[in-house]
Amino acid sequence: NVLKVRGIETVATYDPKTDEFVITTPCESAQKYWIGGAANHATHTVVFSQLNINGRNQGVHAFIVQLRDFDGNICPNIRIADCGHKIGLNGVDNGRIWFDNVRIPRENLLNSVADVTPDGQYKSAIQDPDQRFAAFLAPLTSGRVTISLSAIYSAQIGLAIAIRYALSRRAFSFVPNEPEVLLLDYPSHQRRLLPLVAKTYAMTCAGNYLKKMYVKRTPESNKTIHVVSSGFKAVLTWHNMRTLQECREACGGQGLKTENQVGHLKGEYDVQSTFEGDNNVLMQQVSKALLGEFIAAKKKNKPFKGLGLEYMNEPWPVIPSQLTSDILRSSNFQITTLRLRERDLLNRFAAEMSQHQSSGVNKEYAFALGYQLAEDLGRAFSDRIIFETFLNDEGTVSTGPMKDVVGKLRSLYALTCMEEDAAFLRYGYLSTEKAAAVRAEVAKLCSELRPHALGLVSSFGVPGAFLSPIAFNWIDSNAWSSSSA
Amino acid sequence: NVLKVRGIETVATYDPKTDEFVITTPCESAQKYWIGGAANHATHTVVFSQLNINGRNQGVHAFIVQLRDFDGNICPNIRIADCGHKIGLNGVDNGRIWFDNVRIPRENLLNSVADVTPDGQYKSAIQDPDQRFAAFLAPLTSGRVTISLSAIYSAQIGLAIAIRYALSRRAFSFVPNEPEVLLLDYPSHQRRLLPLVAKTYAMTCAGNYLKKMYVKRTPESNKTIHVVSSGFKAVLTWHNMRTLQECREACGGQGLKTENQVGHLKGEYDVQSTFEGDNNVLMQQVSKALLGEFIAAKKKNKPFKGLGLEYMNEPWPVIPSQLTSDILRSSNFQITTLRLRERDLLNRFAAEMSQHQSSGVNKEYAFALGYQLAEDLGRAFSDRIIFETFLNDEGTVSTGPMKDVVGKLRSLYALTCMEEDAAFLRYGYLSTEKAAAVRAEVAKLCSELRPHALGLVSSFGVPGAFLSPIAFNWIDSNAWSSSSA
Repeated sequence: NVLKVRGIETVATYDPKTDEFVITTPCESAQKYWIGGAANHATHTVVFSQLNINGRNQGVHAFIVQLRDFDGNICPNIRIADCGHKIGLNGVDNGRIWFDNVRIPRENLLNSVADVTPDGQYKSAIQDPDQRFAAFLAPLTSGRVTISLSAIYSAQIGLAIAIRYALSRRAFSFVPNEPEVLLLDYPSHQRRLLPLVAKTYAMTCAGNYLKKMYVKRTPESNKTIHVVSSGFKAVLTWHNMRTLQECREACGGQGLKTENQVGHLKGEYDVQSTFEGDNNVLMQQVSKALLGEFIAAKKKNKPFKGLGLEYMNEPWPVIPSQLTSDILRSSNFQITTLRLRERDLLNRFAAEMSQHQSSGVNKEYAFALGYQLAEDLGRAFSDRIIFETFLNDEGTVSTGPMKDVVGKLRSLYALTCMEEDAAFLRYGYLSTEKAAAVRAEVAKLCSELRPHALGLVSSFGVPGAFLSPIAFNWIDSNAWSSSSA
Repeated sequence: NVLKVRGIETVATYDPKTDEFVITTPCESAQKYWIGGAANHATHTVVFSQLNINGRNQGVHAFIVQLRDFDGNICPNIRIADCGHKIGLNGVDNGRIWFDNVRIPRENLLNSVADVTPDGQYKSAIQDPDQRFAAFLAPLTSGRVTISLSAIYSAQIGLAIAIRYALSRRAFSFVPNEPEVLLLDYPSHQRRLLPLVAKTYAMTCAGNYLKKMYVKRTPESNKTIHVVSSGFKAVLTWHNMRTLQECREACGGQGLKTENQVGHLKGEYDVQSTFEGDNNVLMQQVSKALLGEFIAAKKKNKPFKGLGLEYMNEPWPVIPSQLTSDILRSSNFQITTLRLRERDLLNRFAAEMSQHQSSGVNKEYAFALGYQLAEDLGRAFSDRIIFETFLNDEGTVSTGPMKDVVGKLRSLYALTCMEEDAAFLRYGYLSTEKAAAVRAEVAKLCSELRPHALGLVSSFGVPGAFLSPIAFNWIDSNAWSSSSA
């Protein structure tokens, strides 16, 4: 059960007589659930288990356990059941595992963090149990990195299909007896899809940034990777589900047909907001980490350093009083406003936590009570970093028509963030007049990006085989001659 | 194609020599799509078609056409294909139909609105072609009524499952070594589910109100039913999809298992936001109708009458300057604030439309440009009527503990509407301080309704067979003994 790693109930007891660990599932709630490949195929698995040596619990450790022999027969003292039919990803044979005193060699302990000697002595270079636990879990980060990237890939597929369909499907006309209008020429249809295209561009930059940071990881960067990947995993997978839903609806009835992919991808990727951490919980973890930074800097009266919070050492930013189109589209206004939100929310969150605790509420319950600001803050942090990665990549594009388009995408991303999160109005970062200017500019940017729509989704580079009939000629693909072929 | 009824391309030509209509599908885009039951089973269908008499088009009319004989063989000159695999509702055999000069008896014209005499004279009591068209379409309203109701039923099922699971599933603990906490004791989990319960209660009242209005319909109430059913269909089906998604995520991995219903229902009901009118388009239709009322009243300098707009004859409402808990929970504050939003948005929408048109933009394109306010207004109208139906039903509950709970649900519904729609801040109906008070009260109401959660979802009366294993004993249902049974 991934939700409560530290509270894992499985126990591995060291038996020095045989130089083995004995792994046991002590109760039904300790069964291993959702193990990918376990139901039918896997021959080995990595088991996270409490380590018991001479009656003393050394905390959670990881062990290799063989599940099946090479003919596919389940090994003795192991029981495996299928997780059953799911709403998506049925190509993965998720399984559930019980261990009935399964014996494994001592060498099967994954010992990069800690080891056990043949006579049963526990050795670890990391003395603090919390740090040791974190070191054991560090490899799990890769899950959040790959989920974030795959979320963006499926959003790209959905948008490529929905935009191409909106460029061939017509409905109604503005003038009687004139030809019907392309869906994407409706301002409301532009507003449905183009901000999602801009977000997907920004998040593509963010995903690549996270991937590179993960590949080049060092012990020093582990914490940053943990926090950024938590925030990105939540924001990018939520974006993916929302994008696929909007694309499904934007394709109308055609979006319901399985062959048109969009609706089907929703089912496949729904799990992303849950696995490797519930998205709401991850957002709270991001805010917890930010609060840690905040408290450390304030206590020691030191400048902020890390997680991109260095900007907080500067004076409070000021939003220009008149938001012209030029200002709204300047990266300076955009980053200033995104940072203002994050900084203010972090201050408010710290104040709320300190208030709860001084009123006698313990730390964990204070966090539980502060979920509203925690989730707002987690989003503000993620949006700000996503924006920074986009801005960074924009800097590598040479001046010309392409850079103009990229600049519009960047503006649409930033202004959509501001329009969609009520926090900008709720906490007064934007007055009602300024929020109205932002909203009007979003509609304007959508119409300016409309002529580039096909190019923008083509640039995702989705292979034709991943698209669907309505992404090409939807009338031909629905003709009688196609249906009877 | 439901999206463009008036532009239907199918033609029925009257042949006085044989006293028949000849029905033809002139091109691929005219094929009838998504016809429920057509792919395999239906023997007859109602065809909407242009009616051509002596070369003159009399507009869209409805005809009965036999599709199959009673042995199930497709009739001559008719071609039928399956719509293919869908992401939901595969129990319905949706089909596509082409007519190749199919001859039907003259009596097969559905003639309550208009008729054709044997010698080819067209007769109708309704002279205005627009009114005649509306009369032909009126029976389609029943689709939106039943969709609205079924949306609420599936939201009820999802919530009953998710709340019951949250009352047995535990995770983490607030105090080390204390028992883990029930999911529904987390304030964040209450905030995810309980406002959806309150909304579902309000929308259940609204659905019943719509159903009764439909059953007792008169020619005078047709327009109201058309507008209200359009708004409700959009708002209730969006609510359903959002509720099922939140319930799916709130059930974690268990929500992914098909046996647990919630995820599966999402796929089944996804189509609701599309069929019988795309929800965004329906919202725009609601606003168009409201604008019609507005213009009619202003032009004739007459009081508002109909669609519940009578309140607009009163002076502009005033929101109290200090929002105490008592005020926030008073139905007077709630209805005043919901009406203020609707009234102001209607004024703004009328002003924007008039501005567009005076700048030379035609009416249809003006509506296309005004989509933002149109969608906000459609929602404001629907929320206000939903609230009124809830308030009305609350009035029938006798004083006592039950009425207290119903009052809290009504408050949670109203305040959640205010918290979730940024329009309240954007247009200044609520200042930032007042919006903060609303937000805090939502969290408070959630915790006060927490003890009633099981009772609230039990009152939906969902039969046990419609629930799922996790709605009962999720540990037992996942035990080895269950999986191997």
